[in-house]
Amino acid sequence: MAVRRKVPGLVGELAAEFAGTLILILFGVGVVAQVVAGGIGDHDSIAWAWGLGVTLGVYVAARISGAHLNPAVTVALAVFKGFAWRKVLPYSIAQFLGAFVAALLVRWNYTEVLHAADPGLTIKTQGVFSTLPGNGSLPVGEWGAFRDQIIGTAILLFVILALTDVANSAPAANLGPLVVGLLVVAIGMAWGTDAGYAINPARDLGPRLASFLTGYEGAFRDQTGYLYFWIPIVGPIIGGVLGAGLYQYLIGRFLPSDEPQRVGEVPARDSVEANRG
Amino acid sequence: MAVRRKVPGLVGELAAEFAGTLILILFGVGVVAQVVAGGIGDHDSIAWAWGLGVTLGVYVAARISGAHLNPAVTVALAVFKGFAWRKVLPYSIAQFLGAFVAALLVRWNYTEVLHAADPGLTIKTQGVFSTLPGNGSLPVGEWGAFRDQIIGTAILLFVILALTDVANSAPAANLGPLVVGLLVVAIGMAWGTDAGYAINPARDLGPRLASFLTGYEGAFRDQTGYLYFWIPIVGPIIGGVLGAGLYQYLIGRFLPSDEPQRVGEVPARDSVEANRG
Amino acid sequence: MAVRRKVPGLVGELAAEFAGTLILILFGVGVVAQVVAGGIGDHDSIAWAWGLGVTLGVYVAARISGAHLNPAVTVALAVFKGFAWRKVLPYSIAQFLGAFVAALLVRWNYTEVLHAADPGLTIKTQGVFSTLPGNGSLPVGEWGAFRDQIIGTAILLFVILALTDVANSAPAANLGPLVVGLLVVAIGMAWGTDAGYAINPARDLGPRLASFLTGYEGAFRDQTGYLYFWIPIVGPIIGGVLGAGLYQYLIGRFLPSDEPQRVGEVPARDSVEANRG
Amino acid sequence: MAVRRKVPGLVGELAAEFAGTLILILFGVGVVAQVVAGGIGDHDSIAWAWGLGVTLGVYVAARISGAHLNPAVTVALAVFKGFAWRKVLPYSIAQFLGAFVAALLVRWNYTEVLHAADPGLTIKTQGVFSTLPGNGSLPVGEWGAFRDQIIGTAILLFVILALTDVANSAPAANLGPLVVGLLVVAIGMAWGTDAGYAINPARDLGPRLASFLTGYEGAFRDQTGYLYFWIPIVGPIIGGVLGAGLYQYLIGRFLPSDEPQRVGEVPARDSVEANRG
Repeated sequence: MAVRRKVPGLVGELAAEFAGTLILILFGVGVVAQVVAGGIGDHDSIAWAWGLGVTLGVYVAARISGAHLNPAVTVALAVFKGFAWRKVLPYSIAQFLGAFVAALLVRWNYTEVLHAADPGLTIKTQGVFSTLPGNGSLPVGEWGAFRDQIIGTAILLFVILALTDVANSAPAANLGPLVVGLLVVAIGMAWGTDAGYAINPARDLGPRLASFLTGYEGAFRDQTGYLYFWIPIVGPIIGGVLGAGLYQYLIGRFLPSDEPQRVGEVPARDSVEANRG
Repeated sequence: MAVRRKVPGLVGELAAEFAGTLILILFGVGVVAQVVAGGIGDHDSIAWAWGLGVTLGVYVAARISGAHLNPAVTVALAVFKGFAWRKVLPYSIAQFLGAFVAALLVRWNYTEVLHAADPGLTIKTQGVFSTLPGNGSLPVGEWGAFRDQIIGTAILLFVILALTDVANSAPAANLGPLVVGLLVVAIGMAWGTDAGYAINPARDLGPRLASFLTGYEGAFRDQTGYLYFWIPIVGPIIGGVLGAGLYQYLIGRFLPSDEPQRVGEVPARDSVEANRG
Repeated sequence: MAVRRKVPGLVGELAAEFAGTLILILFGVGVVAQVVAGGIGDHDSIAWAWGLGVTLGVYVAARISGAHLNPAVTVALAVFKGFAWRKVLPYSIAQFLGAFVAALLVRWNYTEVLHAADPGLTIKTQGVFSTLPGNGSLPVGEWGAFRDQIIGTAILLFVILALTDVANSAPAANLGPLVVGLLVVAIGMAWGTDAGYAINPARDLGPRLASFLTGYEGAFRDQTGYLYFWIPIVGPIIGGVLGAGLYQYLIGRFLPSDEPQRVGEVPARDSVEANRG
Repeated sequence: MAVRRKVPGLVGELAAEFAGTLILILFGVGVVAQVVAGGIGDHDSIAWAWGLGVTLGVYVAARISGAHLNPAVTVALAVFKGFAWRKVLPYSIAQFLGAFVAALLVRWNYTEVLHAADPGLTIKTQGVFSTLPGNGSLPVGEWGAFRDQIIGTAILLFVILALTDVANSAPAANLGPLVVGLLVVAIGMAWGTDAGYAINPARDLGPRLASFLTGYEGAFRDQTGYLYFWIPIVGPIIGGVLGAGLYQYLIGRFLPSDEPQRVGEVPARDSVEANRG
């Protein structure tokens, strides 16, 4: 059943990527602020609210932009799923801006509790906004964090490709975003030790800059003084491509490539991309 | 497929709003009583049971009234989705009454443990029923709580509009209420520090009055003695309109407005409203 | 689309009620044993695993018997939904036997940790199997527990009727059992203080007898020596009828009674019952 | 509606079993490493991330291989559901290899925190990789663990057969994997005391060997020095067959065996198997 659709164009797609990532980070950075500065909840709260933030952000952007919300997703879909390379940079910038604005809103809303918990705005509450090797306290170095970001993002993209592949068993009834969010819940619980599961360059750099501009002078460095900020950018990009490629090699090539879309179903994420890219 | 439907009329709609909000608050105020007075569970229990209470309350009322359960939702749908203005006050009163009766039931059922935990019925257990700036202990003032209620309810309405927009990727198979509940779980985990995530004037005022009438003399004031009760009423109304408007601006205008409903699907919340309003 | 169906007959229905309640209690009593005797997890683990046990038990029995798994559900459906009265006692006995056998299996599997945690098999671990007023420690008496069981089971049946009413917005895609389980999760978190949320006579009496027969001499009495066992039997029966009646009054009568079933959908619980009763 | 499908052949099926079990164990062993060595989270985090790992692993492999991911599942489906016996050993080996490689990746990624928490690589962190009676500390012996593995895996297979039986009320909309994962969450919360809920020979032996080869000299023995490793292999195989048989006896035989598949639905797990076996 062909559905009449007003093609939104690139402006709409960028607005959707901005809005979806904004929602994601309002929950993601918000929950860490609540736990670390407000003292309410624990690490599992962080895992749940981050993951649910992904679910909700994806629902916001899904129909218009495909809801990447993550440059590592955008790049991997460009490499393996025909997403247009000319859109990779605009998408990434929109994602970064959404994360940046969301972090400013959290910074503003939690200003009293942040200053009460950490008057000097030090590394003690830096982790509310951006990631650190070993979460700032465990004995993991920069290399360990880099390795972890590659593996963690490879897992993310491997499973996202499975969950959005209509030739595989993708969740129907528009419930894919729910399961994608649960994927991020699980990554938070199992792959959050070495580098705080950034697995998303926009998620990390946007809030890092927002915290830097609002008083966190050491935002770009880790606990050893190392200029750490590039690791949760480069690691996820590499890992995402590796994971997506591994999915194609282990699973995708055994599935039919001409599977028709299910009648009456909204197409899943990456196939929307392929159509639009 | 046209479905024969007995139009319930305003009495049925108000009964549904009453019943849905009753169920919501039986869980919402119930879980805080269990945690604070009974000493069973923690803040994450509150986040989960509140959110699931929303899910269950929405299932109760969804077909008949659209399941607003919240005057901030009702007002925002009137502003942006064509919900009839003449119904805004009746809906709000029904929601308030549902919350009021539910809080009386919780007050009655937990009377022994409330009196054991707080014989004077002071601010110590006031938070079971209604919200306080900084949850009564963190250094957040009235302005901070007001700001927080605006932002938190803006997030709520922004995402509710996304989740119920059939032109977007709204959950199908009648599972929208589940995801709306998960939205409130996430708000509880990430946006509950500054003002206890009232984000619903009926949720706050109804139980506040119930506690006042049953022995909580300070129910309308916060820990500084300020007459606080209006903040979780006015803040959510403003925030809801802002959030819904932002959704329309960033997402809604890029979606087709004439999207046909999916065949055989029960229409999602706000479109039920639009039809009925 | 008419589906050919081998009508299972009463033997099949009773086997399904037995099996479904068995699965429910294997998780329900199992998780309390793990938390109380094994020291693994907390009250939220109990709420989650009980609720998920309901979900899984309902999936086991749903097609054959309608998956009541609870005499309070069976009685309420007989009163309001046309379930055959002649089946009420057989169903209840099958539910009781399923709970009884499941509790014996838990008792057997956790025998080492139960004896290590409570060598005398006293009230300290009695709560693994059956409920106590105030969970054995809070200042709630027999009246409080009775009141609580009436209200709690009224909530249960009110919402079950909403979730299985195809004239309302019942979850489709065979996901009703998931939401029914989440209802029990929420009851555990919000309505578990006064009497351990028995809300099911079979769930309480079956394991109570199993513990009595395997060394818990005080199984039928509470911490004051009162012969408590009848309260979580009579309270839920009364509450279930009240809650179901209230649903009919506040919601059901405003919905069309001749709503056709959705094409291709397995009918929801209570309508299966109505067909079969 | 017949769907054109490129039959993947045994190589594809083994790749899918490898990949699905890899994903499962990346989360399963990953979360235990995060909790035990990283000190982040608690036993409920383990239950959730293991269960979600099952969900995600099943989504990866579902269409191609039926997503057994567990030799106890493969054997039980061969006994009761017509899965080809000649594929049982290849499937089991692929599952073992997936678990083995995943455990090596976790071992590598968590090398710093594992060595910091347990420099001697002793039984203190052995539980990250493989199971122990009483989780290494509770007073449960080898017999108790064997009994527990039989019962626990019987529950697993009983419910898996219910959840994938299209003649019963199997979840539709490709959401079966979500509920199967929640089943494992519940098993972790309720049946994890006596033997760490291995319930899967590949899950236990693969990571056990991976830990043995990377410095855990005592990996094959338990806290008493007993050569324990065979118990979480033999127990689950026996239990799985018992549980699947019990489902057939109590439920399956009352359901129609010629139920047509729902139109447009991807067939559920075991029926894919039956078609392919």
